Parts: sequence; C-alpha cells; structure tokens
Amino acid sequence: MPSPPSPESPATALIALDWGTSSLRAYRLDPAGRTLEQRHSPHGITQLPVAGAEGFVQALQLLAGDWLAAWPQAPLLACGMVGSAQGWREAPYVAVPSDFAGLAGRLVTVPVGSGRTLLIVPGLIEHREGLPNVMRGEETQIAGALALQAVDDLGLIGLPGTHSKWARVADGRVVAFDTYMTGEVYAALSQHTLLARTLERGGAFDEAAFRRGLETAQSEAGRRGPLSTIFSTRTLGLTGVLTAKAQADYLSGLLIGHEVQSVCRTLGAELQGQAWQLIGDEQLCRRYQVALRHAGVEGVRWISQATEAGLWHVAQAAGLVAGRTGLP
Amino acid sequence: MPSPPSPESPATALIALDWGTSSLRAYRLDPAGRTLEQRHSPHGITQLPVAGAEGFVQALQLLAGDWLAAWPQAPLLACGMVGSAQGWREAPYVAVPSDFAGLAGRLVTVPVGSGRTLLIVPGLIEHREGLPNVMRGEETQIAGALALQAVDDLGLIGLPGTHSKWARVADGRVVAFDTYMTGEVYAALSQHTLLARTLERGGAFDEAAFRRGLETAQSEAGRRGPLSTIFSTRTLGLTGVLTAKAQADYLSGLLIGHEVQSVCRTLGAELQGQAWQLIGDEQLCRRYQVALRHAGVEGVRWISQATEAGLWHVAQAAGLVAGRTGLP
Repeated sequence: MPSPPSPESPATALIALDWGTSSLRAYRLDPAGRTLEQRHSPHGITQLPVAGAEGFVQALQLLAGDWLAAWPQAPLLACGMVGSAQGWREAPYVAVPSDFAGLAGRLVTVPVGSGRTLLIVPGLIEHREGLPNVMRGEETQIAGALALQAVDDLGLIGLPGTHSKWARVADGRVVAFDTYMTGEVYAALSQHTLLARTLERGGAFDEAAFRRGLETAQSEAGRRGPLSTIFSTRTLGLTGVLTAKAQADYLSGLLIGHEVQSVCRTLGAELQGQAWQLIGDEQLCRRYQVALRHAGVEGVRWISQATEAGLWHVAQAAGLVAGRTGLP
Repeated sequence: MPSPPSPESPATALIALDWGTSSLRAYRLDPAGRTLEQRHSPHGITQLPVAGAEGFVQALQLLAGDWLAAWPQAPLLACGMVGSAQGWREAPYVAVPSDFAGLAGRLVTVPVGSGRTLLIVPGLIEHREGLPNVMRGEETQIAGALALQAVDDLGLIGLPGTHSKWARVADGRVVAFDTYMTGEVYAALSQHTLLARTLERGGAFDEAAFRRGLETAQSEAGRRGPLSTIFSTRTLGLTGVLTAKAQADYLSGLLIGHEVQSVCRTLGAELQGQAWQLIGDEQLCRRYQVALRHAGVEGVRWISQATEAGLWHVAQAAGLVAGRTGLP
C-alpha cells in the first residue's frame, strides 16, 4: 500500500496513466510537466483484479487511490490498450497522417467514480497498400519523443518490443508506420518449436552470437528471409558452432537483423542520414542500436521517459493543463 | 494386432521403414518393388513405447513383428530421424552434391534381434554460404521421385511440411537445398501469439482467404517480410475484413506465399520453366500448387509414394534387392 501524500507534497497538475495489456503505470506530474512520482502494478487490461468495469476502477484505486484523494482537481489522462475494444472504454483509432492536436481533440471519457472522469488517448490507424495497421500507446510515446527532442522535420522512430512499431514522422505528424511482431515471434520460436529443444534462454547477453545472427540476416543466405534462416539456429547447434546458450542470442540477432534490414529498405529508405530514434526498454534498444549500426545506420538516439512526456504534451494540447505544447 | 500373413502371401523382397519423429510407417515390397502392404503406428522416435534401444525394438515388433517372422530373409531398410543422434543408430550426414549410390554406400547397421540387422539411410548436409543445412528422410523421398519420374536433368523438388525442404537436383543428384520452417512457424504463431486470440483453426479450407494471404505476400507490403505482414492477420480481423475462421487460411497463405516467393528468387531462380515437383501430404501440396501458380510457376506435379519408391531404389543401389536402379 503506498504511503499517503504528505501535506508538503508539491502541486500535482496531471495524473497520467500508461495502461497496457499486462501492466499499469501511473505518473504524477507537476505544473511544469516534471514527474514527481511514478508507480506500477501488474493490473494490465488482461490482468485486472476483478472482471469488467469494476476491475478498472479497482486497479486504478489500488495503484493511485491516494493520489486521487489528495488532488481531487488533477485531470486524469491515459494511453494504451485501456482504450481498445477490450479496454475500459473504446477510443476509436484516428487515421494517419495525424498531428497530436488531432489526437488531443479525440479523447474519450469514462467516469471513474466520485464525479471524476478519465480521458483516454486514441490510437492510430493507417491503410497503406490496402493493409490496415494500428498502434495504441505508441502514438503517445512518439508525441513525447517529438516534444522532448523538438524534432519536427523528417525522421524515423522505432519502438522495439513484443510488437515493434516503426513510425515515419514529418512536420510533427506520424505519416506512416509499420509493425513487426519480432518480440513475440522470438518468444514463440524459442519456446514452441524444434529450436526450443536445444536453445537455452536467460543467460548473459552473448554479443558475439547476436552479431553472428545479424550477419546471417544481412548475408546472401539472409535473402531467403526469416522462415528459412531461423533453421540455422538449429544446424549451427548440430554442427557444434553454437552452444545452447549462444543459440538464444543468435536467434535474437537473426530476427532483429531481418527486421532492421526490412525497415532500412522500406519505411527507412531515403532516411539514412536523418534522425532515427528508439523508444523502449533500454537493454532491448541497445540491441537495436547494434543492429542498426551493423546495417549502416549510425547515431541512433535512445529517448527515455517518452511516455510521460507524451501524456503531458497531449494534456497540454487538450487544454487539461496550462502551458503551450511544443507539438504542432 | 495385425493378422498373420497367410501362406499364400506373395514373396517379400524388402521390409522398408519410414521412421520419423512422430510416426513410424512400414512397407512390405515384392521383388518388383511394388508395395504389397503398408502400416503405421505413432511410435516415432520421440514417442517410443519404452525409452532407449529397447523402445525401438518393441516399436518395430509391434508394427511388423509378424512380417519379420514370416520373411526371415527379407532385408530391413529405414530412413528418417531413426538415423539421427536421437535415433536408434546415428547415420552421419553425407555432404551434397551426392548421388544416391553415395547414400547407398553409407548405410549404417543396427542389430534388431534374432541375428537380423536394420540398415539406415544417412541424411544429407550442405554448407552453402557458410551455413549448414540438413535433411533426414527427405533424401530418400527425393530418390524416389527421381526414380519414379526418371527426371535426371535440372529440376526443383519441394517437400512441404513442418520444415519444408526445397532441393535443386541436377543429373540425379541433390546439388543444393534449403529449409523453411513454415509449418512449424504457422503452428507457433496461430497457437502462441496474439494472433491466437482471434484466429480459429480447423475449419474447411477457405481458398479466398488463402489467396488473399498469397496476394499480401506478393504485394508491395510483402516486401517487408513475414515478421511484419503476419500482423495484418490481426488488423484485417480488427477492421472486420477477415472472420476468425478466415484468419487461419489467410495466415497460411501469407506464410506459404512468403516461402514460395523466397524459393522463386533464390533456389528456384532460372528454373521457372523446368520440372518442379512436390512430395508430401496431398492437401498441403495442393496449397503449394495454388501458391506456385500465383507466383507464376505452372505445371507443378505432385508425386505420390515417393518414400517407398526411394527406399526400394536405395535398396537396389545397395545390392539388398535384385534389379538395377534407375538412379545414377
């Protein structure tokens, strides 16, 4: 149970939530948009304490009930899967290209009790080449990265993870984005295929094995694509080249290498010299930095605290908090 | 329990076994190489009735003990994972390019009791582009296809399955081959990722959905590769384009489409007008025929009974049975 806020606690201008599938993060921000405090719980939308709307109320109360009581005037803003059809209240996708004022103008509301309301940021949808693509949560992180870095010209933002997103931004808008299910494919292959029989996960990062995977993805053999190259994880084990532990990072390098290759020749084409940024888990982003350097993309920056910055700037754009956002 | 052979049973020249990971098939062949009888059991090498060498003896006795007793002179020949390091006796891989006389000269033996011996066909290994690749069992099916079709010039043979193999043959030899883990990737994605939440397996074949997957793989979006395109299985569901049932065959078309695209631009390049053949499960091979036609490869033949034909012709090449093999 969090300790109650002391009477000297600084003013809270916004209570911001990053509410995903498997976790809930809460940020308490001051009137300058600085994070005063952050907390997290495992109560993602698929892991609520009880089912239904009451589960969302309880999860919020458990994590931040004392904040709600101490700052009854602070607006509440959330991003992520909480706004999906399986979430608390669906926030319909906004089509790209969209600026962040566009997102801020499409917030949906849901009552949280005691006469208060939670506002939810919508996700983005794109219909390039006849195929729909969606993101939910990442649009807010991208808003944060743009605000933090004041990058408003052409650039590429990568958000590695279970489902990696790559977004092309121009003039402060997301103009196109792609999804790569790399993280989840890695988990499925390394646990539920023949590769699982020999591959040993969980050791220290084996950078040599990871780089070997990158090299395979970039080699002539890599042209066959991941459906084929992944089998080399096994055969390099069979022939004694890769130990069980090395196979895990080899496979990681292979898949991340294929993803990065693909991004470089599609969404990232013609952007080689421009600002590339990464948002997400620091260790995972390091792997992507290695992979991008291997593919010839240098100077890729890692952006931290993009989520809370994004929620703050969307709140500004929506007029929930004072101040003028740096976003278009 | 199989009924005992009647006294009028025709002569048996060979007892041939296809002994894989999850099943065991036995064929009884006459002196002309015709199949007189076939049987199968679930006693693949990972599902033996008891562990260790005794498990292999028991599995063989259970399935074909009456054959062994009735034809004590018939040679026994097996192919498949029974010759792997996890099998009954390891038959070291033979490097490509290899002709089938080369395989026949490298059979390994293991005693099966009563003074009899089982001979095991070795698999093939290739070290193209620094990456090892292996097959075990498929080399025998390829031998069978070559013998049945008397194709001894340039051609491509596809063996779709859990791990699809594609072999380039020239002058009756396998000169190069690739592996695609398409079947196993499909199973892992459709059961152990986000896609499993909406995708519904097991319905009748939805050819329209399958073709839609092929089209995505071949489209501009397909250039991003399967790590990216597979996400469209979900988004086409989210946007109401694909039903839960249709998602299964869409994903199947997507993955098979990527595999076929890759084969066409690598191992199959410059072979578009030449003999392409498919060996394997008939329903699955039909999907591949549709996919190949979609990619512009016409007239692909499906070869049945390749395994037993292959075992027969390897037995001929090894001098286990009379007659001259049509193989080099």
